[in-house]
Amino acid sequence: MFESDTPQNQSDALGWHWLVDFSQCTKIPSNPLVLEAIMVTAAEMAGATVVQSCFHQFSPFGLSGVVVIAESHLAAHTWPEHNAMCLDLFSCSDKIKAQVAIEFIASEIQAGKVSQRNVTRGELLK
Amino acid sequence: MFESDTPQNQSDALGWHWLVDFSQCTKIPSNPLVLEAIMVTAAEMAGATVVQSCFHQFSPFGLSGVVVIAESHLAAHTWPEHNAMCLDLFSCSDKIKAQVAIEFIASEIQAGKVSQRNVTRGELLK
Repeated sequence: MFESDTPQNQSDALGWHWLVDFSQCTKIPSNPLVLEAIMVTAAEMAGATVVQSCFHQFSPFGLSGVVVIAESHLAAHTWPEHNAMCLDLFSCSDKIKAQVAIEFIASEIQAGKVSQRNVTRGELLK
Repeated sequence: MFESDTPQNQSDALGWHWLVDFSQCTKIPSNPLVLEAIMVTAAEMAGATVVQSCFHQFSPFGLSGVVVIAESHLAAHTWPEHNAMCLDLFSCSDKIKAQVAIEFIASEIQAGKVSQRNVTRGELLK
């Protein structure tokens, strides 16, 4: 179910960015507070330090939200009409256990399918 | 200086995600309000509808910030010690002029080099 890439050595990059597409989800939150709780919990389980968050409920449906962490951010957008959610987790620290966060979120929203890509960021410094 | 991919047909995806790494920057903001103004202006120039934003200043330096837009989000993280900034812009609408936003931000922070990738999101619905 989960595909992941191992982050490169930190000295080669400023950070790593996981792009995760969840589909066939049977428990997409409709309440922004619920999604926020899931995302903040996921960030903390991954070892991140939560700084701020902002979540928004669109009309007639759909949520967007971001959790700023000391190590960068998590962002999520839901498409309840498609039983889908897109998540991205950007971390500048190789201590962050991104897979823990991703698997927790997948479990909370009961995602039937998960597709993820890991992109190295800020490689220009090499 | 700018590399970009043309977004695929919207019916194939939930959205498009631009990952942009700016380096050799000579005007990285140190004030979160300045970065927020740049990001909100960039979003509006791209035709996005700004919903909320949250920006944070780290100690001793570095900023993180996110602008939630009706069409998803923009997020930026700065590394002043490396003259670098990483930006991501996720849009669920093919009306958003992402390149306009990216080029405006590059100009504001006086980026000497820009590397970008465009990732299609939510292709699982095909």
